[in-house]
Amino acid sequence: MSEVVAKAELAKSVVTALGKLTTAQKNEALLTMADALQQNADAIIAANAKDLERGKENGTPESMLDRLALNAARIEAIAEGLRQIVALPDPVGDTLETLERPNGLIIEKIRVPLGVIGIIYEARPNVTVDAAGLCLKTGNAVVLRGGSAALYTNRQIVEVLHAALAETNMPPEALQLIEDPNRASVDEMLKLNGLLDVIIPRGGSSLIQNVVRNATVPVIETGAGICHTYVDEGADPAMAEAIALNAKAQRPSVCNSMETLLVHRTFAGEHLPALGEAFRDARVELRGCNRTRTLIPWALPVTEENFATEYNDYILNVKVVDDIDEALEHIAKYGTKHSECIVTENEENAERFQDDVDAAAVYHNASTRFTDGFEFGFGAEIGISTQKLHARGPMGLPALTSVKYKIYGNGQIRK
Amino acid sequence: MSEVVAKAELAKSVVTALGKLTTAQKNEALLTMADALQQNADAIIAANAKDLERGKENGTPESMLDRLALNAARIEAIAEGLRQIVALPDPVGDTLETLERPNGLIIEKIRVPLGVIGIIYEARPNVTVDAAGLCLKTGNAVVLRGGSAALYTNRQIVEVLHAALAETNMPPEALQLIEDPNRASVDEMLKLNGLLDVIIPRGGSSLIQNVVRNATVPVIETGAGICHTYVDEGADPAMAEAIALNAKAQRPSVCNSMETLLVHRTFAGEHLPALGEAFRDARVELRGCNRTRTLIPWALPVTEENFATEYNDYILNVKVVDDIDEALEHIAKYGTKHSECIVTENEENAERFQDDVDAAAVYHNASTRFTDGFEFGFGAEIGISTQKLHARGPMGLPALTSVKYKIYGNGQIRK
Repeated sequence: MSEVVAKAELAKSVVTALGKLTTAQKNEALLTMADALQQNADAIIAANAKDLERGKENGTPESMLDRLALNAARIEAIAEGLRQIVALPDPVGDTLETLERPNGLIIEKIRVPLGVIGIIYEARPNVTVDAAGLCLKTGNAVVLRGGSAALYTNRQIVEVLHAALAETNMPPEALQLIEDPNRASVDEMLKLNGLLDVIIPRGGSSLIQNVVRNATVPVIETGAGICHTYVDEGADPAMAEAIALNAKAQRPSVCNSMETLLVHRTFAGEHLPALGEAFRDARVELRGCNRTRTLIPWALPVTEENFATEYNDYILNVKVVDDIDEALEHIAKYGTKHSECIVTENEENAERFQDDVDAAAVYHNASTRFTDGFEFGFGAEIGISTQKLHARGPMGLPALTSVKYKIYGNGQIRK
Repeated sequence: MSEVVAKAELAKSVVTALGKLTTAQKNEALLTMADALQQNADAIIAANAKDLERGKENGTPESMLDRLALNAARIEAIAEGLRQIVALPDPVGDTLETLERPNGLIIEKIRVPLGVIGIIYEARPNVTVDAAGLCLKTGNAVVLRGGSAALYTNRQIVEVLHAALAETNMPPEALQLIEDPNRASVDEMLKLNGLLDVIIPRGGSSLIQNVVRNATVPVIETGAGICHTYVDEGADPAMAEAIALNAKAQRPSVCNSMETLLVHRTFAGEHLPALGEAFRDARVELRGCNRTRTLIPWALPVTEENFATEYNDYILNVKVVDDIDEALEHIAKYGTKHSECIVTENEENAERFQDDVDAAAVYHNASTRFTDGFEFGFGAEIGISTQKLHARGPMGLPALTSVKYKIYGNGQIRK
């Protein structure tokens, strides 16, 4: 039996027990995990050093090494993240509806855990703990398959968490780490119908697309964001500049940052040169359409491929459009249904934009950077769904649950 | 361009317009469709005769020809089904939540259509109309791919419905029928990410498994039901018999009927012979474990394969179990997470069964035959979900919707 099947079966073997844990028991497990991480920080940092060393030998880019690196402060922050999950309400067991039928049947719709959740992610050890915390809080078992570049770190973290869970009512089997560094272990997870109830990919677009294209297990597609800001005719220029700069440059590496700025031609004629200067000051490289380049001569030319690219970097496409229709068409063609924004003082256009744009989050006069479970007030986030089934947009704890109907009868039969 | 892509693109081209139709406009479209079906019953029946003739020539079984056959009464019933959908509340546009954030952002969570729904089904013309009605009522476009044995009928029905829609505010492009009878057209639909938002298979288990195994478009798995009834120690014998007979024999061809009866050994010793007689009177063939066959000598022996089979027929597996644990283990091994029942007077066992069984609907003292959108009071049903994502159990109109966050700001940027 492969490692993947063996560990998924172990995970599945405890789902019934997990579903019966009380909120207090689950919270105690998470708090014990948090304490154990801090108490064992040295061992985790030592394991992490091995991953970092190997990464440097392999010529891993600095930005990726930074995501991989742990120190005492980062481990404390990760532990604090678990404690924050403890504070959140537990959705499991909630009665969502009670139906009483004319024949006397009582039908209760109850929130239950999903079962076994597979998480496929990159070499980011914080995701190991964060995903485990969210899944366990909602009574799910979790099978983690992190990037192999973090294997020493993840193995040490999971060893610490298993030891912590052994002191609690939560069975350690609920948390499984796939250690096989080969791509085949990912492929195997993707087809594990019957053992995994859902797979959530977290990472860049190639990781996500591989999961979406090859999984037979149900998937919640997350993350890829080609987000647009459309500055309408008559938009407030100061507000437009503040929102556009924030959407691009406040943190370009994340999925809710802007990749393309669409500007109404009237607004562009009056304000695009100044807006270009603001982006130059923020060290953002601009790639513009022809009309943009007459107004911002230093902008590079933009290509179709640029419009379809999630840069996650200090690069921005700029396109001047004739009207809101052209903006809507562009977004329909290149958007990834994540987050889109209109800056306008025209209420009619705002309403039309919010109705017509097909995306998880559609903003009027606010930065797309707010698409986030914490900013929405959910207190946690397992990811941002860009699909329409099950959950859309930032996913808090309820997105990690399903429902079950319990039906109470006294001998009813169907006529 | 293939027929599938061309028609999916046509469907997608109208989703924005569909999303804006009022409930009254959608209802008017459905009523016009219903009237047109009845007015054109002769043409539909003539087309249906061609399918039936071809089916007889090909040696199609009588039961399948019966599902395919239409007459005036059946067309009236199908039209009546559309009128019933008109009477249901329209979930689209409902505000599910309004969040006001400390920074002044107002976040509204709104129900929206899913977009374009693909339905893959067998040679049952009633599904053509029923699925179209449910999808259009919820503002979705629909791409239908019915069994090729019903092609003449489906083509005629869709021609009638297109003519009807042309007289209404609903664009006829919202309804597409794939006419290519080759399996390749199904395969193409399964990979149509970006054009189809979801695929719902309706039919037998091989059709559903093909979709689940091969689709890259998100799927809602429906239907397959290996349902169990567990008769506990001390169950009321009359109630147990009534429920078991109803679950098996009231309509064996449907997914919520019982395939395996599990009987506690004490109950079996006292009551299984009489229960066997009741099934014999109902012309149900029994296949039993060894203990069953000592009590019901005429029962055939049961195999592992039998336990894993959805008969949809007058055949029942019977197994005597030592206790509720053995019943739960059997259900965990062979159940399809559809509908399961315990008959017992022991409240503790009932509660444990309802908690521990992982299924969409778990019954205490009532027949599994009630798992149905109409019996649950939803007024409609696009299918019964046996997966845990998005929707579980009978799916009414809300299962055909997604959500969107509309965010209202006045210049907010992220700090």
